[in-house]
Amino acid sequence: MTSNLQNLWSEVRELTLGTTSQIDRLHTPPTPLQFLRHYLSQNKPFILSASVATTLQWPATTLWSSTSYLLHRLSSSTVSLHLTPTGNADSLTLNPSSTSLCFASAHVQKTSFSDAIDAINGSCKHNGLGGGFVAYAQQQNDCFREEYGELSGDIDSDVSWATEAIGGLPDAVNLWIGNELSETSFHKDHYENLYAVVTGEKHFLLLPPTDVHRMYVRKYPAAHYIYSEETGEFKLEMENPPRNVPWCSVNPYPSPENKEKEMSEFPLYHNGPKPFEVTVKAGEILYLPSMWFHHVRQTPDSRGLTIAVNYWYDMQFDIKYAYFNFLQSLPAPHEPTSHSHLTNENASDGDQKHIEESTFL
Amino acid sequence: MTSNLQNLWSEVRELTLGTTSQIDRLHTPPTPLQFLRHYLSQNKPFILSASVATTLQWPATTLWSSTSYLLHRLSSSTVSLHLTPTGNADSLTLNPSSTSLCFASAHVQKTSFSDAIDAINGSCKHNGLGGGFVAYAQQQNDCFREEYGELSGDIDSDVSWATEAIGGLPDAVNLWIGNELSETSFHKDHYENLYAVVTGEKHFLLLPPTDVHRMYVRKYPAAHYIYSEETGEFKLEMENPPRNVPWCSVNPYPSPENKEKEMSEFPLYHNGPKPFEVTVKAGEILYLPSMWFHHVRQTPDSRGLTIAVNYWYDMQFDIKYAYFNFLQSLPAPHEPTSHSHLTNENASDGDQKHIEESTFL
Repeated sequence: MTSNLQNLWSEVRELTLGTTSQIDRLHTPPTPLQFLRHYLSQNKPFILSASVATTLQWPATTLWSSTSYLLHRLSSSTVSLHLTPTGNADSLTLNPSSTSLCFASAHVQKTSFSDAIDAINGSCKHNGLGGGFVAYAQQQNDCFREEYGELSGDIDSDVSWATEAIGGLPDAVNLWIGNELSETSFHKDHYENLYAVVTGEKHFLLLPPTDVHRMYVRKYPAAHYIYSEETGEFKLEMENPPRNVPWCSVNPYPSPENKEKEMSEFPLYHNGPKPFEVTVKAGEILYLPSMWFHHVRQTPDSRGLTIAVNYWYDMQFDIKYAYFNFLQSLPAPHEPTSHSHLTNENASDGDQKHIEESTFL
Repeated sequence: MTSNLQNLWSEVRELTLGTTSQIDRLHTPPTPLQFLRHYLSQNKPFILSASVATTLQWPATTLWSSTSYLLHRLSSSTVSLHLTPTGNADSLTLNPSSTSLCFASAHVQKTSFSDAIDAINGSCKHNGLGGGFVAYAQQQNDCFREEYGELSGDIDSDVSWATEAIGGLPDAVNLWIGNELSETSFHKDHYENLYAVVTGEKHFLLLPPTDVHRMYVRKYPAAHYIYSEETGEFKLEMENPPRNVPWCSVNPYPSPENKEKEMSEFPLYHNGPKPFEVTVKAGEILYLPSMWFHHVRQTPDSRGLTIAVNYWYDMQFDIKYAYFNFLQSLPAPHEPTSHSHLTNENASDGDQKHIEESTFL
């Protein structure tokens, strides 16, 4: 079984994705037919360089470099701010009441935009001695259109070639304002994702859905951070009633002291084909296909911010999706058969759409 | 493993293909974007009704109903004629020197078109007592453009919406002239297939590539018929050096006396979801997606002929293809692991492209 899986991982790279860690780079936007034929239908990512025909023509690319412009336009807006002790939300962390891991969501609070900017700029990892937090203005609930309507004239309301190819407008448009302290752990979304960076840079690691066993998707009990402004302390509270979330176990950047342990615990990830590495710069757009596992870090611009907008389009639940679910239903190599609990989509990993259901739908 | 496979077979139907034995029917041709979005990219078949916008506008639809027109235009043409004792070419038959099965190809001869028509009209299954043959004018080597050039003005040289969607002209255009005695056994092709019927009807059984284990693809020694005009007898000659051909073992229409045996030998086929059933009538076009298993029978027009043209377009060897090869590499339920010899595409079943390589490429 391991060798069948290994063949799959190599074959999808040899046939279509390429065997380096680079993805295709386009210098002009694809036509809708080209996008469908070469990328969407093949579930294959690409990056679109900045050019007059891409996001570079957005007013946002210049306007949003000015924090005072943003503060002025959003002076009466309330936005969702995610607070975590160290910049890792929706990620695995030690369960406070035991030595096992849990899936921790951020403390989410609604604040004025100017408070959000202050919080992001004032972010500093909690050092365990009291004080410190990392703030990330984002909410994957169509937050750009919901919370940042005052900026709507600054960007396109959709990606025209994607809209025409897919045959419908985006389901959600999300804005992300953060800095280098925030990091998004490996997960996948049930959306076709067009990810545009406006200022700063985003660094993606990408793995195709064929590599699902390399992610060591396991179920973790859900918890969320609660932040007290008074004490400046975080409390990690387990959800009650308890809920299990299937999530990727792999940390692609383990600390030096954990590296050996991670490598022996997750050998299929660490010894298999390297993930695709993509840096998306200001003015560039990444097509991040549905069901691809992605891990995201960021570099801020000169004023210390990374701003990005992503468009989520409906995916087709077609034969590729059926194949994926079948693949995922097979027990991982060298794991007890009980892991085949991940038989159906209800138990799919990192499913942002489902996890966010309560807030998003 | 059986239940994982069964889940796959149901899920692909529930998600995308439908749970009846019908496929989508369109009444007007899709745009290239619609074709790509809803069918090609999803590896999903459909039938296009006859309408002014489809093959019905071909001169062929009226002209080819006249045998004298065909005889006149093709008076100096040489065509490939396939002869078999009972109308089954590229199918399994008893190996004459043993009680096991072999994969038998037709006796192929080049004849004048008028001799071909005489042979098709004079077809009559060999009764085992001497005499009789079934003739089928066809050759999957781009025969329409190679052998029937005189008719090229009567049909479109391509299917315009498919050409635009796929981004290239057909690799091959094949003509098929036969009658109800010829039947094509279950197999798949590595092409996107647009199958247009000009006169008579074709009856397809279709199964998606996800159902590969239900086809009981096994390796059979290759043989070919040799027909002697003098004696009117067929000889089945094993290929030398021996060559094994992976082929589908299932006969969807077993004779009453064989039915019980077939059902117990191939339970996954006979007890699983029914194949999709499609009758393509004159003027209609079937989109038969790459890698789909298909079995074909036909009904002739009033003069006793079925004439069809199919366009083979290049397929994308993409993530769907990688998933298929992975699926096929898994041992069939309740079969010894040795069957996992079908690990790679070199051993794929019913691979018309590879089998025909010597004549086609």
